[in-house]
Amino acid sequence: VSCLFCDIVAHKALASIIYEDDKAMIFLDLFPIREGHALVIPKCHESHVERLDNDVASHLFLLARRLVRAQRLAGIRADAHNLLINNGKAANQHVPHVHLHVIPRLMGDTLSRAVVWGTRMLNVAGIEKRRRRLDAQAAMLAKAFADTN
Amino acid sequence: VSCLFCDIVAHKALASIIYEDDKAMIFLDLFPIREGHALVIPKCHESHVERLDNDVASHLFLLARRLVRAQRLAGIRADAHNLLINNGKAANQHVPHVHLHVIPRLMGDTLSRAVVWGTRMLNVAGIEKRRRRLDAQAAMLAKAFADTN
Repeated sequence: VSCLFCDIVAHKALASIIYEDDKAMIFLDLFPIREGHALVIPKCHESHVERLDNDVASHLFLLARRLVRAQRLAGIRADAHNLLINNGKAANQHVPHVHLHVIPRLMGDTLSRAVVWGTRMLNVAGIEKRRRRLDAQAAMLAKAFADTN
Repeated sequence: VSCLFCDIVAHKALASIIYEDDKAMIFLDLFPIREGHALVIPKCHESHVERLDNDVASHLFLLARRLVRAQRLAGIRADAHNLLINNGKAANQHVPHVHLHVIPRLMGDTLSRAVVWGTRMLNVAGIEKRRRRLDAQAAMLAKAFADTN
């Protein structure tokens, strides 16, 4: 069965990668809720977070926390963050491979971000141009990420 | 400074508790998005998840994953779950003490749950009656939680 995120892990599909190690990868969401919106995923294929090994799950969570610090260090605009796992299709999981969203938020943007949540997948125009912008952001975030621990 | 969740940890404020140990506590949200909606919190006071010690953070995440299994075991209606941390006020964090939401979801309920998110804090009528219902749910979930690992 084909899985987009497994293809990204295998470097067979494009992604704007911030970090990877033997267990996990971080890349920018192609349909961002806001600039800097990233996904932390396990390299092993698993749809549900409660089925991951404890050490892999803990690792993902620690990486997400480190990413919050890295975003601040990189100067990404964020007054706060949402950390979110949509665990199963009924919870709005679109790719059935565990991913932890790390989403920068600005004060007062709840309604506008809710609208973006509802419409972001329709935003397929200018993917090429967006990819170049995401690649530049990912490079900046990768540098900041390397400076955190 | 007074903190509602610290008061719950100290058993000075009421909550429908599912689980507690020396580092963490799980109780039902008083304004649930859906039946079974629970919060996993650290006992130590900290507003932001990236500032928690690694071992406390990992522990919270493992408890949340175990809670997903416990909800299934307890027969809580759920096709999927959202696991969510609103990390800071601009990300819709209402109590400035880290809490990881574990929210059961049913297929097709996205719009109705979005409306509940936006209005749930207004739902202050019948708190006493709701507390009795939540206490019964918590007792059921506590039993299921004890049977998971």
